[in-house]
Amino acid sequence: MKSRAAVAWEAGKPLSIEQVDVQGPQKGEVLVRIVATGVCHTDAYTLSGDDPEGAFPVILGHEGGGIVEEVGEGVTSLKVGDHVIPLYTPECGECEYCLSGKTNLCQKIRATQGKGLMPDGTSRFSKDGKTILHYMGTSTFSEYTVLPEISLAKINPAAPLDKVCLLGCGITTGIGAVLNTAKVTPGSTVAVFGMGGIGLSVVQGAVMAKASRIICVDLNPSKWEMAKALGATDFVNPKDYPDTPIQQVIIDMTNGGVDFSFECIGNVHVMRSALECCHKGWGESTIIGVAGAGQEISTRPFQLVTGRVWRGSAFGGVKGRSQLPGYVERYLHGEIKIDEMITEVMPLEDINRAFDLMHEGKVIRSVIKY
Amino acid sequence: MKSRAAVAWEAGKPLSIEQVDVQGPQKGEVLVRIVATGVCHTDAYTLSGDDPEGAFPVILGHEGGGIVEEVGEGVTSLKVGDHVIPLYTPECGECEYCLSGKTNLCQKIRATQGKGLMPDGTSRFSKDGKTILHYMGTSTFSEYTVLPEISLAKINPAAPLDKVCLLGCGITTGIGAVLNTAKVTPGSTVAVFGMGGIGLSVVQGAVMAKASRIICVDLNPSKWEMAKALGATDFVNPKDYPDTPIQQVIIDMTNGGVDFSFECIGNVHVMRSALECCHKGWGESTIIGVAGAGQEISTRPFQLVTGRVWRGSAFGGVKGRSQLPGYVERYLHGEIKIDEMITEVMPLEDINRAFDLMHEGKVIRSVIKY
Repeated sequence: MKSRAAVAWEAGKPLSIEQVDVQGPQKGEVLVRIVATGVCHTDAYTLSGDDPEGAFPVILGHEGGGIVEEVGEGVTSLKVGDHVIPLYTPECGECEYCLSGKTNLCQKIRATQGKGLMPDGTSRFSKDGKTILHYMGTSTFSEYTVLPEISLAKINPAAPLDKVCLLGCGITTGIGAVLNTAKVTPGSTVAVFGMGGIGLSVVQGAVMAKASRIICVDLNPSKWEMAKALGATDFVNPKDYPDTPIQQVIIDMTNGGVDFSFECIGNVHVMRSALECCHKGWGESTIIGVAGAGQEISTRPFQLVTGRVWRGSAFGGVKGRSQLPGYVERYLHGEIKIDEMITEVMPLEDINRAFDLMHEGKVIRSVIKY
Repeated sequence: MKSRAAVAWEAGKPLSIEQVDVQGPQKGEVLVRIVATGVCHTDAYTLSGDDPEGAFPVILGHEGGGIVEEVGEGVTSLKVGDHVIPLYTPECGECEYCLSGKTNLCQKIRATQGKGLMPDGTSRFSKDGKTILHYMGTSTFSEYTVLPEISLAKINPAAPLDKVCLLGCGITTGIGAVLNTAKVTPGSTVAVFGMGGIGLSVVQGAVMAKASRIICVDLNPSKWEMAKALGATDFVNPKDYPDTPIQQVIIDMTNGGVDFSFECIGNVHVMRSALECCHKGWGESTIIGVAGAGQEISTRPFQLVTGRVWRGSAFGGVKGRSQLPGYVERYLHGEIKIDEMITEVMPLEDINRAFDLMHEGKVIRSVIKY
């Protein structure tokens, strides 16, 4: 079949709107009609060419909401018409990781997904006979996309797909990092570095966890209004402290440091600040941002020996098939705010503008509606 | 009063056996007659001059066992004749840290202790009118030493002080890091880097925690016998794998990495290996070793984002006054092995030989008997 899609033919170039060929779902696969998709920094990172695993041509996009159009042989948990959120972190329920009870990082199809292919080692996308790769197992920048059954979370059809698509990445990542990974406790102090979609979602998560103080750190003061509306209590702009490391500023503000911190940028220097602004004896820092290829974090080991803990989080530690439907319910009950994060809505044809706005720091999230 | 003591007059020089003057205990202080003391790498580190906080002249030693000789005004929890272990990590029971329930790092007297002084800002040691500093609040290389009441754990007098003195540092640090800090779970796989007194104690702790596999890493194969006797299951010598990073060797041995690892050397490169040999998704690495001044650990943040956790441990997370007496009982019941770790016993006059043997890697622990 044919599908409208935004194709990334090569790194560093704008996406090209094309009619691509989509092969129907094979065994264990599902064809989904994407209704809406967010545009995330990770898409931009891969498009830039900096992602060492990035391969082209490819159909990007990983923050989608859609409806099952057709199921392949052996698919039992989904049927035509089901509303779904694509998962770049699948949940097979069978691998060592899924069964461990300790992680959401299902490894069942990791090898092929990392290469831009379906589990059988081939792609469902092509144009004029030329193969186009999948991306993160999702490729939500195509109106019709094919995914493994284990990469789809079935959600409440009452939820608006042009909103809950954002639960496919950023919002869930931020909230989950607070609730699942760091396990922020009531009354805690929290520092959040970077007020993009993830950082704002960390603020939401910290409010849900009943943190007593939520300190936001960003170089752009225009981010403060939204953070405050979501429940943040303090805003710190490192530019206001040219002579003091930001970790020291936060230590001074909090009588010794915060109980929990989160890095939501992908800057290895900020990751260090986030660790070192934690309270001696018990402060825990969680890395959420994705750093550039080859970059490293560092600190003095004394920081850890004196009781700080350094950890990281991917997709907020959320198991997509079993836990994401609950996030959708929380949205429907008003406990998770999504609408406020959507600052632009546009058709697929304008998708390059969504990337431009993101680079200019003018949006929290743009949503593409097909 | 007079006391025999091994004085470090300056960095890099052998200790000098002297008759020093010891001032009696002031308010809240206790005079202890040290019966025996271990000689630990930390003493050697400070003596070497590499410790940026090291100050001279000083009486080193922090792994002692003794008997209360006299108590100062206001001391209520100890009386003459009590058997005690000096604590370089005190437990006041009142400060924010003690009350947090999250850490053993009591901060009540940290500022003065770090300067080699008693809480009132003065020293109890002198020689011919020249002040000699305290060390780690303990100075167990003096037969008579003065400590704050909060820096003494009262123990069962049935325990031999020339054995349980080692619970004042190395053995407790290793076992506690396993049980309190990492909280190793039954059936886990464990990697231990460095088979000195701390590493061997980590092996003991891992056995107590019912780990299924305990992999020891050391460049010196002669360490294997003792580790095996304590319950280790595998020995890896990095020299046997000149072309493979040791973390990869361990990942290959364990089908993806260990559940818990411990660095017991103080080498920042080994700290990285210890983190990176942990299993994706859930492996946790604990730094116990003390690195040289200014040295830093580093890794790719991806290591943490994919589920590994990096933490550290000081004195095994053990609260000295409330928990160390229980370690002594475990020794008396045969659950903690100490005797096997003592490979040399000598009088104070031979203490420089204990340092030599340690540098030569020929001993696990030397014990000085006064």
